[in-house]
Amino acid sequence: MKNPRLIAVGVGPGDPELLTLKGARLLREADVVVTPIGDRSDSSVAHSIIAGFVDAGRQQLLTHVYPMKKNPAEMEDAWQASAAEVAALVRAGKMVVFVTLGDPFLYSTFLYLYRILLDQYPDVAVEVVPGISSINAAAAAADLPLGLASDRIAILPATFEEDKLRQTLLDFDTVVLMKVHRVFDRVRNLLKEIGGERRAVYVKRIGLAGEAVFQNLDEVKTEDLDYLSLVIVARGKRD
Amino acid sequence: MKNPRLIAVGVGPGDPELLTLKGARLLREADVVVTPIGDRSDSSVAHSIIAGFVDAGRQQLLTHVYPMKKNPAEMEDAWQASAAEVAALVRAGKMVVFVTLGDPFLYSTFLYLYRILLDQYPDVAVEVVPGISSINAAAAAADLPLGLASDRIAILPATFEEDKLRQTLLDFDTVVLMKVHRVFDRVRNLLKEIGGERRAVYVKRIGLAGEAVFQNLDEVKTEDLDYLSLVIVARGKRD
Repeated sequence: MKNPRLIAVGVGPGDPELLTLKGARLLREADVVVTPIGDRSDSSVAHSIIAGFVDAGRQQLLTHVYPMKKNPAEMEDAWQASAAEVAALVRAGKMVVFVTLGDPFLYSTFLYLYRILLDQYPDVAVEVVPGISSINAAAAAADLPLGLASDRIAILPATFEEDKLRQTLLDFDTVVLMKVHRVFDRVRNLLKEIGGERRAVYVKRIGLAGEAVFQNLDEVKTEDLDYLSLVIVARGKRD
Repeated sequence: MKNPRLIAVGVGPGDPELLTLKGARLLREADVVVTPIGDRSDSSVAHSIIAGFVDAGRQQLLTHVYPMKKNPAEMEDAWQASAAEVAALVRAGKMVVFVTLGDPFLYSTFLYLYRILLDQYPDVAVEVVPGISSINAAAAAADLPLGLASDRIAILPATFEEDKLRQTLLDFDTVVLMKVHRVFDRVRNLLKEIGGERRAVYVKRIGLAGEAVFQNLDEVKTEDLDYLSLVIVARGKRD
């Protein structure tokens, strides 16, 4: 007898082979698999990752829409509806897997659902299975280690205020800049202004169609910028 | 025909089920599997993770000693010997997997080998397969998300100078403190001094024998401290 619960399974950055053995097993064992999709073209990625493990003849496969870039009330309504359905399924005795790109506890869509479940459905058991985050996958693709021995690492949105961003780049050994597409020129100029021996690598759409790695930020053109991209800045020269 | 190369496979924090499908496949396909061991009692963890995937009758299984806490020259000698053997195997046409706990590019033993290979054996092809880091696994075990939406995250040794540590705790939404066993009382006092609404969770030996999670730092006794442990500090109260 399976324990009724919600299990957030981190399925990694996009390559189905970067799913964990535990994630694959739980996808096969689940009564219900919920895949959240946004309103962007990347929505099909999660479906393609899980396709080889689930079976529509034997399992209930649900798609929940998690709108992005809409008004907050509309987003909140969608999360509330998702939480209500998930909670009802668990209360009816089902083992429900919620598919999460990357890692469920690092910048994921799941965290919106998680907050609502903790607040409003405290009787619903929740389990989290970690996944490969896009940050670790990007570092591997960029040939750029995130940290060694006593290194200090910062992960933050590149949209952070410029003075604080500058100080972070000076204080930390490695800085991972998220949401970089919005302020790419500012980041590039800031790195030139700071100077020193640093490697900065732009990684675009890691694990997804259109994945690309730029070892030189000067070669990144406006059309190369993408919502799903990041810059890793590390001390030291290119080897 | 396999491409001769060294593949660093991140095998995750300890639970063999947190290995990726890709990691499992490469362990099975390898001609040679190298498992680094330290001189601590945790050495057998990597062996236990890979045991179900490798076959001593068909593959060459090597153990390389990576000493810890010895003099630097002795450590360097061990890394050099490991690199020389790995390079010779790849040059002889072998596909060699190097087993790495956690993720190869995040505070791993592999990074010592990687540096030497890049510097001294540039003809040896190296590939990195990301793994679940102990940080992501610890967050899941602690029920404590690392970051949501535009949060800023810092990962650094707790042994960092106190003023900088205080500033980091004030500036970042989530702070992961590594090597916390050496300065645990200092960290606990600093958090009390700073005040504010923060959750701090101590996670010990994630994925290994003796794993434990303390949601209240005041309950951590001297005998609970361990080399393989960390503290995650996040804004907000315990839910």
